[in-house]
Amino acid sequence: MSEQKPTLPKGTRDFGPDKMVRRNYIFNIIRRCFHKYGFLPLETPALENLSVLTGKYGDEGDKLIFKILNSGDFLKKVTQEDINQGAATLTPKISEKALKYDLTVPFARYVVMNRHEITFPFKRFQIQPVWRADNPQKGRYREFYQCDADVIGTRSLICEAELIMLLNEVFSELNIEDISIKINNRKVLSGITEIIGKKGSETDLCVAIDKLDKIGREGVTKELQTKGFSDEEISCLDPLFNLSGNHEHVITALKELLATSEVGLQGVEELEQVYEYLIASGYEGRLPEPDITLARGLNYYTGAILEVKVNNVKIGSISGGGRYDNLTGVFGMPDVSGVGISFGVDRIYDVMEELNLFPTELQQASSAVLVASFDKESEKYSLSLIRRLREAGISSEMYPEPVKMKKQLNYANAKNIPNVIIIGSEEISSGLLSIKNMETGNQAKKTVDEIIAELKP
Amino acid sequence: MSEQKPTLPKGTRDFGPDKMVRRNYIFNIIRRCFHKYGFLPLETPALENLSVLTGKYGDEGDKLIFKILNSGDFLKKVTQEDINQGAATLTPKISEKALKYDLTVPFARYVVMNRHEITFPFKRFQIQPVWRADNPQKGRYREFYQCDADVIGTRSLICEAELIMLLNEVFSELNIEDISIKINNRKVLSGITEIIGKKGSETDLCVAIDKLDKIGREGVTKELQTKGFSDEEISCLDPLFNLSGNHEHVITALKELLATSEVGLQGVEELEQVYEYLIASGYEGRLPEPDITLARGLNYYTGAILEVKVNNVKIGSISGGGRYDNLTGVFGMPDVSGVGISFGVDRIYDVMEELNLFPTELQQASSAVLVASFDKESEKYSLSLIRRLREAGISSEMYPEPVKMKKQLNYANAKNIPNVIIIGSEEISSGLLSIKNMETGNQAKKTVDEIIAELKP
Repeated sequence: MSEQKPTLPKGTRDFGPDKMVRRNYIFNIIRRCFHKYGFLPLETPALENLSVLTGKYGDEGDKLIFKILNSGDFLKKVTQEDINQGAATLTPKISEKALKYDLTVPFARYVVMNRHEITFPFKRFQIQPVWRADNPQKGRYREFYQCDADVIGTRSLICEAELIMLLNEVFSELNIEDISIKINNRKVLSGITEIIGKKGSETDLCVAIDKLDKIGREGVTKELQTKGFSDEEISCLDPLFNLSGNHEHVITALKELLATSEVGLQGVEELEQVYEYLIASGYEGRLPEPDITLARGLNYYTGAILEVKVNNVKIGSISGGGRYDNLTGVFGMPDVSGVGISFGVDRIYDVMEELNLFPTELQQASSAVLVASFDKESEKYSLSLIRRLREAGISSEMYPEPVKMKKQLNYANAKNIPNVIIIGSEEISSGLLSIKNMETGNQAKKTVDEIIAELKP
Repeated sequence: MSEQKPTLPKGTRDFGPDKMVRRNYIFNIIRRCFHKYGFLPLETPALENLSVLTGKYGDEGDKLIFKILNSGDFLKKVTQEDINQGAATLTPKISEKALKYDLTVPFARYVVMNRHEITFPFKRFQIQPVWRADNPQKGRYREFYQCDADVIGTRSLICEAELIMLLNEVFSELNIEDISIKINNRKVLSGITEIIGKKGSETDLCVAIDKLDKIGREGVTKELQTKGFSDEEISCLDPLFNLSGNHEHVITALKELLATSEVGLQGVEELEQVYEYLIASGYEGRLPEPDITLARGLNYYTGAILEVKVNNVKIGSISGGGRYDNLTGVFGMPDVSGVGISFGVDRIYDVMEELNLFPTELQQASSAVLVASFDKESEKYSLSLIRRLREAGISSEMYPEPVKMKKQLNYANAKNIPNVIIIGSEEISSGLLSIKNMETGNQAKKTVDEIIAELKP
């Protein structure tokens, strides 16, 4: 084996203890809220059969799925003709499995495979990594976590209202207060295409509108033109871009605008119903802002569309979701409606770093105590002390060698261990141990019982 | 998109809510113990560069690594000659990345890449899935979790003693009491090869002895014969197979047997020192049993070797570990000694199922309350009730549609939700809500405040 300088694959990251503490802080809050709202945990494997994933994310998505090379002699059944056809044709012949690309398709697969055991409505959450062969850039990784919660098997708009409360609660708990929760409804977008005489072109409209933030009004106009929208049709959109004000105002305006579109009105009514539920609940959190330009890239949403943005931080949305009416249809189980949200943990992490929102006490992920021994003779006493500390539930560690005291204290400092107990012959004979507070530098003599009483969690 | 019956890749599993609760119970106990002993969390990506993994697990291991097909046109730089050479030659040309095979090699990579930021001794734990293209069978999966704790950067045998205490504590907390912790030392095995005149043949000896449980004494003898051990050499092993009794007896006997082997005596002294530390600490848990036949498959151990077996359950070892002296050498960072242990969560899970060791209250992973509405008119009251319950920290859910009460109660039953609050017009006007205990069937009328006081966690 020759020496080599090891590297990480691009777009992947290690999470050392400091980062783990902060990530777990976020995960724990999200998980606690999920539980509080009645969602139960599910985990699916990283590996899925390639056939389960392909065709679900569009052509572009298919290219970004990481495929696993078949093990053993993967060329055995490959013909020269297969190879001549090129990579795209060859792939399914040498790769049967892939890494999951999102949590939604594996969830749909799980539901279909376990339909007879599942009690519907089914509320599940899932916090797991997914993989995409995307070009890595700031905030975009090839391996990253998704945190999803979905309710499936009911069309009740109570679920939408509950998810908005959940969104609000998670961000309040995380102390990310300056956010906007935006809401739209796919049926409103459909209504708009009807009104402007471009029924059926929702996808083109959505894809274009979705980029409004990035390419501006002019860019959207250009894109719509290339998709065959006439200038007249585009100008019909004008009033929509100018809709603003509180939800009551927007809803009233939409009812007028979409008066001749059945599906459009249905969308507006759904929006209205969600607000009614929220207000009836006595909810005092942020009300969502209706945003008719909100489309989100994924075109499988059929009802509500939700998105959360942080105001005054340039980072895109940190959460989003919506209702879909045919999650499991592709696997032969039709008419399963659901609604879900997803938290972008990597972006949430970056926002919290930028706004300095992690609690300061989080730094102390380490043990509460370091036991430091002056000499070889003190080691055994230290071992019995540390056993007693741990029996009392105090997380603690022992410096495993009686090196210079300065080195042991430096270790405690580097690891943010707040207390050091120093053991030498004097301490052993007197039973009074020196305990040093690493923050203040204060040192005191105490008995083991006193120390345990003080540090016991 | 055509309909398809979806399946899981063989050797992989979904973990639905019931299984998740049980697995998390195990993970949480292990994690809590790791923290208590001063280990800090680390996570590394699932993806590693293939070059980081190959050559670390032997030829057999290399074949079991799942390789990722390069994205895009992976055939671009492949020549016809590469293809003619076959799969083994072609693999590195079309695959740069792979799924991690264990937690140890990625840990070594992490240490080397972060050597200047890490404070040594470095105590880290890691709980993550790994992937192996093994043939799946009972208790063996292609995607499974490892739970590792290691201390690196010190040769102190205090670490070995602490890891034994940690093993003991984890299994006591899990209520798996009928176990044996076995200990050996690689240097003792080296000493044995010296004594029988086969110095340098540790690997052959270890590999053969390691199979003693499976193939018996006779099988081991046969295997050693095929590896070139003479009958005389093999008969020299006799006294070793018959070593039994408490550790003091075994250590005394080994000192005699290995009197002429320097390395052998060093191994015995190390064993003795670990016992001394354990006893000096006042440790009252299980003492490890010395087992000279314990070798474990991996031949990178250089000092202590540890293994935990459950007595009276046929399942192999549920935990193991040992000391290695050259973890990071292959990445150009020599002389880093470490010692670690690993918990086999899947087997631990199976043992706990078989012995019925999961706490019964674990079944109730669900919400504490289901709010059931009699009719559409009650929905909004239910929403405000559920908001109040959640504000009090009570995990609760609302049946999202006013379907027949029987269906809503069945839902609560199926999901193990212990309490159902039934909301109808009478309840709304009186302010006295019906709360039904799903286990006893008892129903009582209470105010919201009474209910909250009762259920508040």
